Amino acid sequence: MNHQFTPEIYYNTIGSHEPVLRVSNGDMISTTTIDAWGYDAENNKVGKRGNPMTGPFYIEGAEKGDSLAVTFDRIIPNRKIAWTRCAIAPNVLDPDYYPEFDDDKVKIAWELNLDNNIARPLDVDPPLSNLRIPLRPMPGCFGVAPPNGQAISTATSSTHGGNMDYNGFVQGVTVYFPVEAEGALFYLGDGHAAQGDGEIVGTGMEISFDVTFTVYLQKGKTITWPRAENETHILTVGNARPLDQCVEHTTTEMVRWLEKDYGLNTRAAHTLMGQTVEYDMGNVYDPAYTMVCKMPKRILGELVTKK
Amino acid sequence: MNHQFTPEIYYNTIGSHEPVLRVSNGDMISTTTIDAWGYDAENNKVGKRGNPMTGPFYIEGAEKGDSLAVTFDRIIPNRKIAWTRCAIAPNVLDPDYYPEFDDDKVKIAWELNLDNNIARPLDVDPPLSNLRIPLRPMPGCFGVAPPNGQAISTATSSTHGGNMDYNGFVQGVTVYFPVEAEGALFYLGDGHAAQGDGEIVGTGMEISFDVTFTVYLQKGKTITWPRAENETHILTVGNARPLDQCVEHTTTEMVRWLEKDYGLNTRAAHTLMGQTVEYDMGNVYDPAYTMVCKMPKRILGELVTKK
Amino acid sequence: MNHQFTPEIYYNTIGSHEPVLRVSNGDMISTTTIDAWGYDAENNKVGKRGNPMTGPFYIEGAEKGDSLAVTFDRIIPNRKIAWTRCAIAPNVLDPDYYPEFDDDKVKIAWELNLDNNIARPLDVDPPLSNLRIPLRPMPGCFGVAPPNGQAISTATSSTHGGNMDYNGFVQGVTVYFPVEAEGALFYLGDGHAAQGDGEIVGTGMEISFDVTFTVYLQKGKTITWPRAENETHILTVGNARPLDQCVEHTTTEMVRWLEKDYGLNTRAAHTLMGQTVEYDMGNVYDPAYTMVCKMPKRILGELVTKK
Amino acid sequence: MNHQFTPEIYYNTIGSHEPVLRVSNGDMISTTTIDAWGYDAENNKVGKRGNPMTGPFYIEGAEKGDSLAVTFDRIIPNRKIAWTRCAIAPNVLDPDYYPEFDDDKVKIAWELNLDNNIARPLDVDPPLSNLRIPLRPMPGCFGVAPPNGQAISTATSSTHGGNMDYNGFVQGVTVYFPVEAEGALFYLGDGHAAQGDGEIVGTGMEISFDVTFTVYLQKGKTITWPRAENETHILTVGNARPLDQCVEHTTTEMVRWLEKDYGLNTRAAHTLMGQTVEYDMGNVYDPAYTMVCKMPKRILGELVTKK
Repeated sequence: MNHQFTPEIYYNTIGSHEPVLRVSNGDMISTTTIDAWGYDAENNKVGKRGNPMTGPFYIEGAEKGDSLAVTFDRIIPNRKIAWTRCAIAPNVLDPDYYPEFDDDKVKIAWELNLDNNIARPLDVDPPLSNLRIPLRPMPGCFGVAPPNGQAISTATSSTHGGNMDYNGFVQGVTVYFPVEAEGALFYLGDGHAAQGDGEIVGTGMEISFDVTFTVYLQKGKTITWPRAENETHILTVGNARPLDQCVEHTTTEMVRWLEKDYGLNTRAAHTLMGQTVEYDMGNVYDPAYTMVCKMPKRILGELVTKK
Repeated sequence: MNHQFTPEIYYNTIGSHEPVLRVSNGDMISTTTIDAWGYDAENNKVGKRGNPMTGPFYIEGAEKGDSLAVTFDRIIPNRKIAWTRCAIAPNVLDPDYYPEFDDDKVKIAWELNLDNNIARPLDVDPPLSNLRIPLRPMPGCFGVAPPNGQAISTATSSTHGGNMDYNGFVQGVTVYFPVEAEGALFYLGDGHAAQGDGEIVGTGMEISFDVTFTVYLQKGKTITWPRAENETHILTVGNARPLDQCVEHTTTEMVRWLEKDYGLNTRAAHTLMGQTVEYDMGNVYDPAYTMVCKMPKRILGELVTKK
Repeated sequence: MNHQFTPEIYYNTIGSHEPVLRVSNGDMISTTTIDAWGYDAENNKVGKRGNPMTGPFYIEGAEKGDSLAVTFDRIIPNRKIAWTRCAIAPNVLDPDYYPEFDDDKVKIAWELNLDNNIARPLDVDPPLSNLRIPLRPMPGCFGVAPPNGQAISTATSSTHGGNMDYNGFVQGVTVYFPVEAEGALFYLGDGHAAQGDGEIVGTGMEISFDVTFTVYLQKGKTITWPRAENETHILTVGNARPLDQCVEHTTTEMVRWLEKDYGLNTRAAHTLMGQTVEYDMGNVYDPAYTMVCKMPKRILGELVTKK
Repeated sequence: MNHQFTPEIYYNTIGSHEPVLRVSNGDMISTTTIDAWGYDAENNKVGKRGNPMTGPFYIEGAEKGDSLAVTFDRIIPNRKIAWTRCAIAPNVLDPDYYPEFDDDKVKIAWELNLDNNIARPLDVDPPLSNLRIPLRPMPGCFGVAPPNGQAISTATSSTHGGNMDYNGFVQGVTVYFPVEAEGALFYLGDGHAAQGDGEIVGTGMEISFDVTFTVYLQKGKTITWPRAENETHILTVGNARPLDQCVEHTTTEMVRWLEKDYGLNTRAAHTLMGQTVEYDMGNVYDPAYTMVCKMPKRILGELVTKK
């Protein structure tokens, strides 16, 4: 079934709030998200600052011990102007190199051209005025209700997903979450038209979205951290601090995946990962950071299909 | 001038050892490196375990305050058999997921086929026996004498380079180092025929190399951390622990580079990096970890050349 | 006013739950807490495992921007038997030194003797049977509702307090919290009859308590992290990961305190702290760790009173 | 045998430099150290900035696999004026709270009064002028030659000791080191007349010392990290980054000590530590940080002697 949903309320925590829509396994939902400061497609402030979320969507039959798969079918900026901050965060710079910017110059507006897929900054001097950045729309924050009845700020991330700001979560990707609450309760928002690795200036190109996604319920499939899949790779996510801890979580989740779902024994899983694994860095701005572990399907496929 | 150099001694620290060869700005050196356990092309043990280095090469005229550029012209495995370990290190896994392997099964031999650029494991059972990994030869450890007369183990890394195990340092790349000692004193070794990100099993495919590299002296050009350049990106390196610290160092070095060499003002440098920067993960096995910050030349070029 | 309160419900998150009692500035509350596994004074399981809390107590008039001061007037174990685990957590040991214990031997019972203030282990062999540990009762987890409507698991800690497991929070200490929700909403539990620094085995001597505490509302007094005061020191708390981050938070809070409340200029505050500051380590077992920064009142007093 | 040694050379790395004096097991050495900037008792600059060391002292018969014990018999400042910096380091403060000081006001002179054991700052305004700090002389940096022929800067620390800046290393303490090079090669310097935990301003009260110490060789006694002993505690040291890593190293070394030397089984060692261990924080300013793990002799003694 296809749903067209227009949000009227936005949450700044991911928790067990009242569902805004009930959907079933395999349903497709088309809706909108507002930007990180709460502004919508018409530039009206309709949500509270700090990654206001669209949702939660209740998936019928989902319960603790299941996984929820969400495929991002379509992610499109729905207005012309996006915003970034321009100061790299102190926590990703050496102390003697901290930026000092006038407060009134920290925010930059960008004009998005969806036809040629390019953003350009407005009202800036050269050389900045020459900058052209390819669009690569992605939701910075999304996830499901966390364990034990917690309600966690959309400023951070954990096993439930949250503010991961990973620029590999683009249209076409499927993301898997551990279900912890009845109905899973999926939220999404914090759209970025583009974003460098790490979200090191504390923002991507903040924008409102038209989004369409499909939900699939995987009964009895238990996972520990978010996983994902795109055309070329399977991916696992670890959210924590410091980054070393993220690496531990995401690497472990990849071992679990290879062992449990791909049927590799421990020696094969470790050997394969040792010589072929890849890592991407998500958010390094928030209270919890994010690292992504990736396994190329091409190499994995040879290993698995030939057995 | 071209040098053909045959090493007779190998060092396990990078420091102010007696130079093995004196070369000049622009000279090309062809030599060999032995593997991390000290075995050469004929599988003879000629060096001491723990990343024995070929070098140091003394570059005439190099002194503190200069930079040394080294271009890897050619990196070729010079024997058929490489070795890996197969157990992911405990420090990159959650405590409840540590591997336990029989000691006699931890090491795996790989046969390299240079014609079709593929490695395959020997004497292993399916599914491991089906694994085929593309070769991508890279020296795991290289660098110049560190500051203040230190002699630092080739097990670790710092501002001088060292055991960074970054799989982007392949043939064709140019790496820049801060010169701290007279003659710079360049070392290299610890060849890997291939390696996953992070060297998470503590080894790449350990192999001996035939290598050719060219040295360029950049008088009076002061840098703080290793930098590099390939066809598509400029790169900076941060070596420390935890990874967060690496991110701080490498990000700061990129800002320095953009400001000092590309003439960007602070606002332009930060804004550019915020929306386009990329990070790769080097070693997460050694006492010091490695992160690499990358800026796409294509985007940077537009910004700089149009001013 | 004095309140005698008997809890009937226990929460495993600290958030904006329905208050169990409304009290006023200066009121004293006598109540009980159950142990970390949910067992009460009669060893009945009345709460859910994982630090079930007594509370929340609503303090009339408290609102965001205020501070809540809580003085622990009396903390007394109210049963004879406490429990510990005996295995040091993997995250505080080198990987090659992880313990392996039979699961049925991991838990140890301790008999508390309140007359001579000593605990001794039961049903253990020598030499363990000779161990005598002085009692020093402390609540491991307590705090107020966190900001932005979050509900945070009692397994962890942050600016609101939570599972800090600092063994300096004993009878007689006054702790200050930043009020973020209407009524402040104070919770406490997770009693320990004694505990080593760091709670490195994941438990103190887990026990139920009779507790009496007094609440004081400090209108308009804004603080960022928990603070505390005992006879000899003023203390600040930082909760995060890694410990370095805790050090940053707690040190900054101490500077704030010295500058804003003790009227020291920045140079005096830094100089004083540089040569006299002390640090204690709280929890290093949970998702967030804890460090405590301490300033001796004796030295501070000389500086301040003589001006 | 007693030696009176007057240094003529000072090293800024700890490594296998030419010994300045050869001594035997049980010998007592009286000598002097200069301050961190290279100034001696007469305020003459005789060494190079950055913790110039007195030594190395060669202990006859010491070789890899032994331990060296050094007892600090006497540590006395040998001039009247000490120096501190007054700005807390950025790496121990939140980014929004970094100090900014005029460079010419960052250094403060202190007058030491050895009769009443107090230091007071000179040429400062109230309230700083009222500050009186008790003396507690300690060498900030000392250790033995590190493994594998390394030469490590006296700015940092590792298994060999080095710049640990732990204010518990005072007169009367015995420190144990793992011997890695022939003769052990002991160095010491970087005297502090007093110092807060962490050396958070990057200096203690920097001063030159008259020191007397005694060396004891423990043949065949292998240890991994520095250990120490005072009247009330046995202590172990971990030097690394982040602090979490220090905690792992020092905790593991304490377990080793309890198991191997005190004969406790694993369960007894872990249980004892869980409820009684203490931690102190050493340096958090340098490239490597320091944590100290302590076990009270009183409690340990009961456990061990009664068996």
